[in-house]
Amino acid sequence: MSARVREILSWYGSDNPGTLANLARVMNHGRLAGTGRFVILPVDQGFEHGPARSFAPNPPGYDPRYHFELALAAGCNAYAAPLGFLEAGAAEFAGEIPLILKLNNSDTLSGGADPCPAVTGSVDDALRLGCSAIGFTIYPASAARNEMYGQIRELGHEAKRKGLAVVIWSYPRGSGISKEGETAIDVVAYAAQIACQLGAHIVKVKPPTAHIEQAAAKKVYEKERIPIATLAERVRHVVQSAFNGRRIVIFSGGEAKDTAAFFEEVRAIRDGGGFGSIIGRNSFQRPRSEALDFLRQVMDIYAGKAK
Amino acid sequence: MSARVREILSWYGSDNPGTLANLARVMNHGRLAGTGRFVILPVDQGFEHGPARSFAPNPPGYDPRYHFELALAAGCNAYAAPLGFLEAGAAEFAGEIPLILKLNNSDTLSGGADPCPAVTGSVDDALRLGCSAIGFTIYPASAARNEMYGQIRELGHEAKRKGLAVVIWSYPRGSGISKEGETAIDVVAYAAQIACQLGAHIVKVKPPTAHIEQAAAKKVYEKERIPIATLAERVRHVVQSAFNGRRIVIFSGGEAKDTAAFFEEVRAIRDGGGFGSIIGRNSFQRPRSEALDFLRQVMDIYAGKAK
Amino acid sequence: MSARVREILSWYGSDNPGTLANLARVMNHGRLAGTGRFVILPVDQGFEHGPARSFAPNPPGYDPRYHFELALAAGCNAYAAPLGFLEAGAAEFAGEIPLILKLNNSDTLSGGADPCPAVTGSVDDALRLGCSAIGFTIYPASAARNEMYGQIRELGHEAKRKGLAVVIWSYPRGSGISKEGETAIDVVAYAAQIACQLGAHIVKVKPPTAHIEQAAAKKVYEKERIPIATLAERVRHVVQSAFNGRRIVIFSGGEAKDTAAFFEEVRAIRDGGGFGSIIGRNSFQRPRSEALDFLRQVMDIYAGKAK
Amino acid sequence: MSARVREILSWYGSDNPGTLANLARVMNHGRLAGTGRFVILPVDQGFEHGPARSFAPNPPGYDPRYHFELALAAGCNAYAAPLGFLEAGAAEFAGEIPLILKLNNSDTLSGGADPCPAVTGSVDDALRLGCSAIGFTIYPASAARNEMYGQIRELGHEAKRKGLAVVIWSYPRGSGISKEGETAIDVVAYAAQIACQLGAHIVKVKPPTAHIEQAAAKKVYEKERIPIATLAERVRHVVQSAFNGRRIVIFSGGEAKDTAAFFEEVRAIRDGGGFGSIIGRNSFQRPRSEALDFLRQVMDIYAGKAK
Amino acid sequence: MSARVREILSWYGSDNPGTLANLARVMNHGRLAGTGRFVILPVDQGFEHGPARSFAPNPPGYDPRYHFELALAAGCNAYAAPLGFLEAGAAEFAGEIPLILKLNNSDTLSGGADPCPAVTGSVDDALRLGCSAIGFTIYPASAARNEMYGQIRELGHEAKRKGLAVVIWSYPRGSGISKEGETAIDVVAYAAQIACQLGAHIVKVKPPTAHIEQAAAKKVYEKERIPIATLAERVRHVVQSAFNGRRIVIFSGGEAKDTAAFFEEVRAIRDGGGFGSIIGRNSFQRPRSEALDFLRQVMDIYAGKAK
Repeated sequence: MSARVREILSWYGSDNPGTLANLARVMNHGRLAGTGRFVILPVDQGFEHGPARSFAPNPPGYDPRYHFELALAAGCNAYAAPLGFLEAGAAEFAGEIPLILKLNNSDTLSGGADPCPAVTGSVDDALRLGCSAIGFTIYPASAARNEMYGQIRELGHEAKRKGLAVVIWSYPRGSGISKEGETAIDVVAYAAQIACQLGAHIVKVKPPTAHIEQAAAKKVYEKERIPIATLAERVRHVVQSAFNGRRIVIFSGGEAKDTAAFFEEVRAIRDGGGFGSIIGRNSFQRPRSEALDFLRQVMDIYAGKAK
Repeated sequence: MSARVREILSWYGSDNPGTLANLARVMNHGRLAGTGRFVILPVDQGFEHGPARSFAPNPPGYDPRYHFELALAAGCNAYAAPLGFLEAGAAEFAGEIPLILKLNNSDTLSGGADPCPAVTGSVDDALRLGCSAIGFTIYPASAARNEMYGQIRELGHEAKRKGLAVVIWSYPRGSGISKEGETAIDVVAYAAQIACQLGAHIVKVKPPTAHIEQAAAKKVYEKERIPIATLAERVRHVVQSAFNGRRIVIFSGGEAKDTAAFFEEVRAIRDGGGFGSIIGRNSFQRPRSEALDFLRQVMDIYAGKAK
Repeated sequence: MSARVREILSWYGSDNPGTLANLARVMNHGRLAGTGRFVILPVDQGFEHGPARSFAPNPPGYDPRYHFELALAAGCNAYAAPLGFLEAGAAEFAGEIPLILKLNNSDTLSGGADPCPAVTGSVDDALRLGCSAIGFTIYPASAARNEMYGQIRELGHEAKRKGLAVVIWSYPRGSGISKEGETAIDVVAYAAQIACQLGAHIVKVKPPTAHIEQAAAKKVYEKERIPIATLAERVRHVVQSAFNGRRIVIFSGGEAKDTAAFFEEVRAIRDGGGFGSIIGRNSFQRPRSEALDFLRQVMDIYAGKAK
Repeated sequence: MSARVREILSWYGSDNPGTLANLARVMNHGRLAGTGRFVILPVDQGFEHGPARSFAPNPPGYDPRYHFELALAAGCNAYAAPLGFLEAGAAEFAGEIPLILKLNNSDTLSGGADPCPAVTGSVDDALRLGCSAIGFTIYPASAARNEMYGQIRELGHEAKRKGLAVVIWSYPRGSGISKEGETAIDVVAYAAQIACQLGAHIVKVKPPTAHIEQAAAKKVYEKERIPIATLAERVRHVVQSAFNGRRIVIFSGGEAKDTAAFFEEVRAIRDGGGFGSIIGRNSFQRPRSEALDFLRQVMDIYAGKAK
Repeated sequence: MSARVREILSWYGSDNPGTLANLARVMNHGRLAGTGRFVILPVDQGFEHGPARSFAPNPPGYDPRYHFELALAAGCNAYAAPLGFLEAGAAEFAGEIPLILKLNNSDTLSGGADPCPAVTGSVDDALRLGCSAIGFTIYPASAARNEMYGQIRELGHEAKRKGLAVVIWSYPRGSGISKEGETAIDVVAYAAQIACQLGAHIVKVKPPTAHIEQAAAKKVYEKERIPIATLAERVRHVVQSAFNGRRIVIFSGGEAKDTAAFFEEVRAIRDGGGFGSIIGRNSFQRPRSEALDFLRQVMDIYAGKAK
């Protein structure tokens, strides 16, 4: 096991060896094995955005096995999906790639300003499907946040007791903040902190903008002259906000965008000390060979093989 | 066992042999045995719409035994009903036809824009009544959807552990969408996807119209030129949305309608790769001999014995 | 055992011999033993309406033993009451008369438009008190109905497993319907159906009026020309709605009224095929000897000894 | 469903529809479907006698799938085996043939005069493997019999609650009787009675000899002139001893023997009113084609197609 | 994943993806990864024989971390040990090598002719320590065997439900057989069969001698001319006895012996179709470099890189 992986594991001293082993499994799989960097394939968009919006751009993605295979071929560290998608391939791909069971999910057929996902899987589901971790989304800034925090408290406790790792998607959204505020640097940093405080081993946030949402925060950012001009600086601040870098923070790719811009973003995440990316639509909505090439380049950036 | 039934079973690799055996039982019963096609008789309207609206058009249907006998005589794959109706005939018809216990039901004496059925049966009820599967209704687009998703998560997990199959009725309805949207192609495809992601083995949806409800979806349907002009095309899209056809999707007959129109619909379901129909009012509200003739013709269409 | 009692028992094929024996016990006790007709004394008004409103008109009724003795002396099939009333006499009258423990009750010191009774007893209480059945009230049309349906689902399952019978009081009430609708023929028939679907062995409803509450139902009643002009016709329709007469349906006496009118009502219930009456205030609020005489006459009507 | 199967089911009035359905499933499968006669393939000899003694005579039998396929091809009513053998084929043969999970087994590497098998499976194992029944061996006459009786009491109760049937192998053996006594007519009849009293739906005993083991019994057999001269007479007596023929009694083939002698025995079982045979070594130790021919002839005898 | 690993996984159709993934993990780790062959390091001798007898020959072995490191450096598929030994290194070596928690162990400070190990760990211990499998020893031929069989029945069921694999050490020993009989070919084959019937995924037995212990078995071995002259032939027979080779059977090295003799034995296991070796004392009692060399040669034999 590489020194870097050992170092990262050393941050999780309260966890039992089962959870550590599963964290190690994720870190030791794929093209980035041993680097302490991550590229994870998440495919929950079928549930979150509907099948056509998710899979019509690259129709093989309607088949749940496609994503297991894509994650495997691309050398991702892990593949994350809701119950049904994992049930539909976990036996066929048993033991081939670390799995993360997304335990809550929202659809877009209902819901108002304050999102609250439904719990759609259990820790025992994760065990029977051979997963290394559970995944859970919180929406800080939603009026329903306490319900989510309470759920992950319980699910996280059970997962840790049974030797699984806990991944929290922390997406500020809801009546508490503005739309622009969802990716504001103060809010994203805060979201990372909350996820860590809730006991996450791995935190997923969105790349932050230079906007500052909260007046009280704004004063401090200005007074302390926290550098947030570049994305790399902002990433550095978010990582710092995640227990001074002692929790794994990865960044979502967000909506499909220009490839060059995407790589630019990845470089900034790398340079700011981010641990990696979780890339859904930008990978599975491209034709397979293009996606493999794309993910290879992302991994090369993280691995330091490319600028 | 037919090659087709084996193929369908192969899609459910995460399930234990008990659940597979019960899926096989449903597929191997009745006139469509072995074809991988389904015609299921559901009779939950007594609970959902009240007795007179349900049974006055054909009064023998007030007697719970009538429906067991009808499903059996017609050669349906299974008969689905709530607790009371199954309790009233399960001993007399023990072992004669696969049964599905509907575990939640709504009445129309109460309830607002956002439906949420009551849980009216348990997995242990299904075992003691000799059922092959549990049935459960979700209403995506209802503000109460999370409660339903949470309930089926728990009931589905228990059912699978005890060797039963899981059938989800997925009917978008509620304040999240318009009345027309309930059968919109994007919404029905989405409803099928959600049911699959929640772990259903068999999904029941309504035949979709060409209407597209969600603006974000509309863009994709147009950009990707997803063919939805004919019902067969729309069925094909829904089946694709159910894990690329690797989950069983059947279609409800909806409200009583003209027989010729009904057969036309069945042909479109067949041609679009749908797995079959679940036909309640259109069968049990006709006089028995007429219903048998009607169901025979539906099955002939699915079996390829009739155009 | 009479042929009629045997016939009635034959409808409950999913039940174990313990439950059947308790059903038989109720049917074979009192003046109507063996007829398949029922007169049951329920005294839950102390809880539901308060003591003075309930017992001041006939003060011996403050004493819980009074009602055991009244039911026994009158030759009722069973006596139904909440936990406290049964605890206060069950030992003294052990084995003398079948008992029904009312497991939920509402008081009138609180509560709004949508009633939801408290669960005030358990199946194990019923066993330790020597009861033959549990009783449970549902209020279809209450916004809280799902909670009640879920409770009786669980309690009914347990009662059946432990060899007890299940009696459901099905009283539509709440924001879903009008005051007049509570006794509308469509609503009462629907209420009977719901109780049966929830697994009741015995259903108690109110005598229905000729009013039709629901527009969708009205169309069917008119189109199918369902006869509902006389009370006997309406009772017949309600009995039909209770699994075509294969579940025991009894009728409450409702509010205290003129004796002649009451007997008229009983005759209509009898002529419409109703199984009997459950008579509270009309019996225990009269002086004892008058009540005995009154109940004797009701039973004579049901037994066919009186017009 | 045939009148005979209905008649047999009518004997089990205390059972829930789930158990009845599973009994029906066994009676309605294979070449004897609907006749109320049984030929069951049991393969527990690998555990009970060791692999070489069991499978060396026909080596394909080392493969667990062989026996599923043999039972299926031969048209047996069911296949019975211990946990491991069922786990090794239940998914591949899901839904193809009713399965019986033998829940206790003895090996011959240890044990004295008083056998007591180990419990090697559970009712939940039976559910997850899709079984219709549990099987259990008791050794009346063993000093350890109470332990076995207690185990089956508990397992049988659970199986019945969960809708499974209960098959008891009743083999008197132990310090309580002589070797010859194990198949004595009084002892075999007694063993059948005990199994029925313990709640078995199906009882398996050995074909009895004319020997009478117990002095107290001998007096009665002689005084009452119970006919036991021929095997048919003895079978009739055993069937009578199994609740006057209201429990299903089947007979083991015992050790491999001459084919003609075997058929003679089967004819006697049939003529004496026995319900069928459970044939292990005599079927799976022959070459496959010979076994199929052999079982076909046995079934023809039971079906009345052969003398 | 190699075709051979896929083939082996296909034998375990009743297992969930979690268990399959853990089986795959063991097969895909170390120098024999992907070959379907195994070399496992077990260190339970500290418990079973005492520390000095176990570790004095190579004192670094007193340190629990030594064995993790040895198994890892040697490229073993897995490391198996009791609770304490795993607790003492599982965090430090988290995720580096598949672990097997031995759930029962005997000491030699007590106990008579009929061994019965104590249960010293739980399935939840295995989860919290990050294990891929539980290990359990049975002693067929011990008078206490039923207790062990019952324990593994329960533990195995729980392990499978929670996604772990089950390894059974099957060592005939006790008053039922002679000392020589413990490794007799009939007894070892029988022991393998019993472990498979109890639901083991992986079975560990001792290399058998040509001795035949049981008279009843002897007749069959002679009559059927089962080849047992060479160790390779005997291994072949044992593998056949483990569900015709459809369960993984590995062989213990037994007592420390001459290296050349050991390799000879390994070659015979390989040539007989055995799946590998579980080598304790022969590895950890040698100096580390010698042990690494020794294990490398063993693996080369299994990998076909050496004769």
